[in-house]
Amino acid sequence: MALIVQKYGGTSVGSVERICAVAEKVMAIRARGDDVVVVVSAMSGETNRLVALAKSIADPPKAREFDVLLSTGEQVTISLLSMALEARGCSARSYTGAQVHILTDSAHTKARILEVDDQRIHADLAQGTVVVVAGFQGIDTEGNITTLGRGGSDTTAVALAVALKADECQIYTDVDGVYTTDPRVVPEALRLEQICFEEMLEMASLGSKVLQIRAVEFASKYNMPLRVLSSFKEGPGTLIAPEDETMEKALISGIAFSRDEAKLTILGVPDKPGVAYMMLGPISEANIEVDMIIQNMGADGNTTDFTFTVHRNDYKTALDILQNIAQEVGAREVRGDEHIVKISLVGVGMRSHAGIASTMFKALADEGINIQMISTSEIKISVVVHEKYLELGIRSLHAAFDLNSESVS
Amino acid sequence: MALIVQKYGGTSVGSVERICAVAEKVMAIRARGDDVVVVVSAMSGETNRLVALAKSIADPPKAREFDVLLSTGEQVTISLLSMALEARGCSARSYTGAQVHILTDSAHTKARILEVDDQRIHADLAQGTVVVVAGFQGIDTEGNITTLGRGGSDTTAVALAVALKADECQIYTDVDGVYTTDPRVVPEALRLEQICFEEMLEMASLGSKVLQIRAVEFASKYNMPLRVLSSFKEGPGTLIAPEDETMEKALISGIAFSRDEAKLTILGVPDKPGVAYMMLGPISEANIEVDMIIQNMGADGNTTDFTFTVHRNDYKTALDILQNIAQEVGAREVRGDEHIVKISLVGVGMRSHAGIASTMFKALADEGINIQMISTSEIKISVVVHEKYLELGIRSLHAAFDLNSESVS
Repeated sequence: MALIVQKYGGTSVGSVERICAVAEKVMAIRARGDDVVVVVSAMSGETNRLVALAKSIADPPKAREFDVLLSTGEQVTISLLSMALEARGCSARSYTGAQVHILTDSAHTKARILEVDDQRIHADLAQGTVVVVAGFQGIDTEGNITTLGRGGSDTTAVALAVALKADECQIYTDVDGVYTTDPRVVPEALRLEQICFEEMLEMASLGSKVLQIRAVEFASKYNMPLRVLSSFKEGPGTLIAPEDETMEKALISGIAFSRDEAKLTILGVPDKPGVAYMMLGPISEANIEVDMIIQNMGADGNTTDFTFTVHRNDYKTALDILQNIAQEVGAREVRGDEHIVKISLVGVGMRSHAGIASTMFKALADEGINIQMISTSEIKISVVVHEKYLELGIRSLHAAFDLNSESVS
Repeated sequence: MALIVQKYGGTSVGSVERICAVAEKVMAIRARGDDVVVVVSAMSGETNRLVALAKSIADPPKAREFDVLLSTGEQVTISLLSMALEARGCSARSYTGAQVHILTDSAHTKARILEVDDQRIHADLAQGTVVVVAGFQGIDTEGNITTLGRGGSDTTAVALAVALKADECQIYTDVDGVYTTDPRVVPEALRLEQICFEEMLEMASLGSKVLQIRAVEFASKYNMPLRVLSSFKEGPGTLIAPEDETMEKALISGIAFSRDEAKLTILGVPDKPGVAYMMLGPISEANIEVDMIIQNMGADGNTTDFTFTVHRNDYKTALDILQNIAQEVGAREVRGDEHIVKISLVGVGMRSHAGIASTMFKALADEGINIQMISTSEIKISVVVHEKYLELGIRSLHAAFDLNSESVS
């Protein structure tokens, strides 16, 4: 008899019919003899409706009150799912974040979970009751309602799984697993049977938005096996688990990419210690996140060239800031390009296999794709290319690393 | 500096515009230097929407879960009103029933308030903060969310006013006070400046549905002055307060009526002790509420005639039950009439004035209205007449007791 924590996202509980389908799914697990804790999001569209209501009154609305409002979305879903279970003869009880003491810090709209009280849930499970918990929400030590930010329900599920020492945390969503790359770009993309936490973190942060990064980090920290499944079709999904030393490692697990990149370059900066901070300090003060950074000695040997990427939304602001800096420090020139994308190879197998980078660069060169920037980590190689090469680049890499041929485990 | 508890019903907070108007009203009271606690209902239409959602999943839905669902309605309103106040520079904090420990029994969907924690609210008021509390909801000793049943927000407001020792509890609604009778029936009907609790209870239970009876009973028990006001137009409303011995009493405060009555009569029941219970026991077991009851010796001296009224919805069921009883006890005949109405004169002045009843009966006789049943209490005389006489009866009584002429205090 296992204890399974399941999480169903907004589209999975988006209608009365969908909620009833989830009830049937949960009962199938119960019938197998397992204990189930279900975490649910707000019905799809509900959070947007509440946000619009708030903004029509105050923009921005007071954060404390915004959380009181948004938390009603999940409260509706937990009650409806529990009713659906009870109506089918399955004992069920709903709990808000406050009711099971999902204690968070007081950072309204982006709180972090500190502690979960497992006593009440264990008592219900012992009675054979399915426990249905509102995702995304908690309370702080003062009893104020908090929310974890968009996608926080994944984090709630993992936190509960860890607190309850569950056997597995299953995240039901509208895709049936994690793929070698986006099947909309490469139709031959294959579902991964298994992937390790580190790979998943690189995949998620690089644009394969299946799971919230925070939830994966949390699961990784406590070694809680995560499984991504579709709530719309049957199948084993993808298991995200600690790296297994005994299993043969795939060279490459997948290809992630990001379309929303922009590149800025400042040329001919008089070189001296602290030049990187002079460039990036004002950018970070403007709350702009910088991704890849490259610094190179300039052609003359006395100046340095400096290139970095930002989210495309931040491009104009970053460009203005950089032009001011260029004047201040006497740099030669500022250039920008908002027509770039980033493509990344991810795989723990890289650690023990040489030649991945050269295979990658050759595959791109064979297609005549010019690489503008390169950045590497232990399990990832990222390149920046012109946006017109996005699909071609991904497809050629997918083929070059044999990802088309079989499901990788 | 006074402490005022205000309650705004569903239509008063039925839209973003209305919520902002309520915020302005609350700020006007604050500007006067008074402390304010605001109790709100769900936005009009919201509770019906949630009920429909629940019923599409389970009918009846599990009561515990139904309460979890319904309580979100008021939670939305408290957050929006608090946002509106904060956006106008007025410090405000929202609280759910659970957050201010509105402790109730565990009778889901019709819970009763046992206790209210006033500490947290007093602390906020001391900081100059407006406290906004969700009406209609509480928690039981196990921490389950409960609701008080429709109209329960009035009760929440009174319970908070009592617990906080407020100076006045103001109930904002869509009418501007309590009238001598329904202005739709008698256009000359006048708003009452003041009315005592006992009169209000008789008026409310007889059909002038301005306030929830439970809330009036609660206020009466703790001598908490209640004021009914319109949230749509200015005015002093009607004060419902303990009976004031020093003020000159009006003879009659108002004329209440009920259209939804039906009458049942069983004739020629062999007379013996316990006959009333034999008739009414099975009716009450069928959860039918009986209003007026009259028992008279039959014409032959050995049998008794028995007449009572029920809500018109219960007429058919009551008739069936009574026909069975008639056979069992050997009664002569059962008669029924679902075309009757009840008209009641209410006034504490009756206690010290003779002749009210005869004035009433004369006024009705002058119009040729036949009285079918009469029932009296210390401060009320009710008559049952054919439904076609409803308007005529009320208008003739309104004139006969001079209620047209001036506002009665």
